[in-house]
Amino acid sequence: MSSSSPTFPTSSPSSVPSLGREAAAAKDAGAALTSLRDRFLLPDGVVYLDGNSLGALPRGVDERVRATVTGEWGAGLIGSWNDAGWMDLPRRVGKRIGRLIGADPAAVHVGDSTSVLLFKTMVAAARLRPDRRVLVLEATTFPTDGYVAAGVADLLGLELRWCDAADPAASLDEDVALLALTHVDFRTGAMFDMAALTRAAHDVGALVQWDLCHSTGAMPLDMGAIDADFAVGCSYKYLNGGPGAPAYAYVAPRLHESMRQPITAWMGHARPFEMGLSYEAAPGAARLASGTPPVLGLSALEAALEIFDDVVLDALRAQSVSLTSWFIELVDARLGDRVEVVTPRDASGRGSQVSLRHDQAYGIVQALIARGVIGDFRTPDLARFGFAPLYVTHVDVYDAVAALVEVLDGEEYARPEYAVRNAVT
Amino acid sequence: MSSSSPTFPTSSPSSVPSLGREAAAAKDAGAALTSLRDRFLLPDGVVYLDGNSLGALPRGVDERVRATVTGEWGAGLIGSWNDAGWMDLPRRVGKRIGRLIGADPAAVHVGDSTSVLLFKTMVAAARLRPDRRVLVLEATTFPTDGYVAAGVADLLGLELRWCDAADPAASLDEDVALLALTHVDFRTGAMFDMAALTRAAHDVGALVQWDLCHSTGAMPLDMGAIDADFAVGCSYKYLNGGPGAPAYAYVAPRLHESMRQPITAWMGHARPFEMGLSYEAAPGAARLASGTPPVLGLSALEAALEIFDDVVLDALRAQSVSLTSWFIELVDARLGDRVEVVTPRDASGRGSQVSLRHDQAYGIVQALIARGVIGDFRTPDLARFGFAPLYVTHVDVYDAVAALVEVLDGEEYARPEYAVRNAVT
Repeated sequence: MSSSSPTFPTSSPSSVPSLGREAAAAKDAGAALTSLRDRFLLPDGVVYLDGNSLGALPRGVDERVRATVTGEWGAGLIGSWNDAGWMDLPRRVGKRIGRLIGADPAAVHVGDSTSVLLFKTMVAAARLRPDRRVLVLEATTFPTDGYVAAGVADLLGLELRWCDAADPAASLDEDVALLALTHVDFRTGAMFDMAALTRAAHDVGALVQWDLCHSTGAMPLDMGAIDADFAVGCSYKYLNGGPGAPAYAYVAPRLHESMRQPITAWMGHARPFEMGLSYEAAPGAARLASGTPPVLGLSALEAALEIFDDVVLDALRAQSVSLTSWFIELVDARLGDRVEVVTPRDASGRGSQVSLRHDQAYGIVQALIARGVIGDFRTPDLARFGFAPLYVTHVDVYDAVAALVEVLDGEEYARPEYAVRNAVT
Repeated sequence: MSSSSPTFPTSSPSSVPSLGREAAAAKDAGAALTSLRDRFLLPDGVVYLDGNSLGALPRGVDERVRATVTGEWGAGLIGSWNDAGWMDLPRRVGKRIGRLIGADPAAVHVGDSTSVLLFKTMVAAARLRPDRRVLVLEATTFPTDGYVAAGVADLLGLELRWCDAADPAASLDEDVALLALTHVDFRTGAMFDMAALTRAAHDVGALVQWDLCHSTGAMPLDMGAIDADFAVGCSYKYLNGGPGAPAYAYVAPRLHESMRQPITAWMGHARPFEMGLSYEAAPGAARLASGTPPVLGLSALEAALEIFDDVVLDALRAQSVSLTSWFIELVDARLGDRVEVVTPRDASGRGSQVSLRHDQAYGIVQALIARGVIGDFRTPDLARFGFAPLYVTHVDVYDAVAALVEVLDGEEYARPEYAVRNAVT
């Protein structure tokens, strides 16, 4: 579909009161979740719909990082490993993330990057099913998940099997060691039924690993209730931990004792400062640790997570659904088939983003950014909009769609400066 | 040796002018390296001899981290991956570290923890020698090196062979895939001859990996000249990158094309934002990357490394040798055999630390800390003192030894509050 061939006239916003800016404000006033936008330092005039790529800066993070740098590091020096609780940071942050994903604190490890934790848990899973040779992933998963799995398969002599996202269970059989899925698709926003697919994997004796990057912080999750084996996620999207913030991993308590991760190192040792020659894994998910905790990143993340302390997680999801539904409603009414909504229209089947397909998607996203509406582009033809429920409002959504209408009407996407793509988009 | 059995009287400092505080000040005035102590925010009244565990806070780091948090993240949001150069941070930091270790910028990767990079490079090395089954390490290496190697051996079906630190080359033969050594021993400060041992490994067709954690930033290094295969180091000791700062790895350019590291992931891809299904490794050491760069940690590290721009690396080593020699000279003169100097007395055989053995070492270190002289304890009986040449002065050394004499004379180490050991010491 192209903007040059609209097939029917779109409604004017003023002509339909229920689709107007006042209606948006009324939705905000009556929202299940009191907006926590004041807790974020968003620039004036910006509608930020890219919190699914990099979450906004929470108030308090700057102060906390300064205190860590100048007070703890500068003044406290080496003593801060004990005195400022640096050694305990991964556990404290893990406890906060545990609440958001329905996990016992001892079942959560924080540190490394998402990719490294995907590697550690995939190898651990394969070792728990030594007689099985197949890892199942979907071909449209976030690329790093596939690259890591290919690396694990190469290392351990396993086979990668690409499943159909429409029915991953159809690819399961008794050769499968691990089903590794991304809960919410980074391109389309489509969301799997975690409980059902976990059951399906367990029914054939396989383990399951969930990538929660696009879920945690936008909806309540319950790893315990669905009986997940492993989960991994980043903390720089809906958790607002900052660029390149440390990742987290969940391991079901029933696997703690038997699980063996490959990067055995001092911080995953039961007694790291005895500095003995033989390795003894720490109890719980803490055995996933390898190197020294990244203190600056963990401090920023810990401060960012404080915002969630005041949030009812069901209200978080209600707000997310309300925002994405409102966006789709406005796009349908005002743009008709000038764009294609690729995200599931059934709210139970989507996460907290909506993606629009258009052959000029790159230029559209750039033109929107020029207008202060920040979404992002995913190759080859998707304009992606994330709705972080803590700080995005229904009025933001209204303004974003109004800008989108003007970008399409004025063909702003065709400006020559949008012909060359940036490295990161 | 115990403080309760001194065998001969020690000199009084005032009685030997060449061992007095004025002599220390004269050494500082004539030092090869102009002290850069003003570039560090060290607390008043502190003699900091633990920069070999956590480097002091450089001026400018706080401002840089604030700018990253509030300006780049808070105001620039997702656009900062391009606009603030976040994507390029690992390469920029790698270039600075490359100068310190004698490496082409393309041969250095920055990111992950030291343990994770040890893992990646050990697996890569083993894959480059697929017909060889032995990894050689010394039993007194930093524990994480041994734990990681044991994990790699377990994963790949290899054998660990512990060599004698007195003669690692004696353990080399044509079964050896990799000799992995720590250049400067974290306990004793003893330093290997990197060039000779690299040659010895190559003579039997093995690869070599150097752990540079206790070397880089305290002396010039030249990975290219010694023809090292791999090297790994942390950046939070003599590089002053801050607690848990990202680590770095070196890979010889001749191995770039053939090297395959196990954690293949999007940031090590030649074109990460094409988000294709198949993995193609980036050129150079950049293929060691896995996940999203840790921006806060990298920003702090980049600011910290600026100090080295003004430093002649040979002068760094000259200052380091002068400081450790002065410390040993004072300890010998004033404490005699009340402590045992376990660090090699030949300066060419030691790094930038001196370790003293005493059966009350833990209490001695705690009593010194109470006096503002910060060293650290290594189990079971070592008091360890690091001499970061950028900010430690000869007067610091004098004051530290004076405090040590008083701690021993007054048996301050025996105070009951030092009976229970902290987690990190």
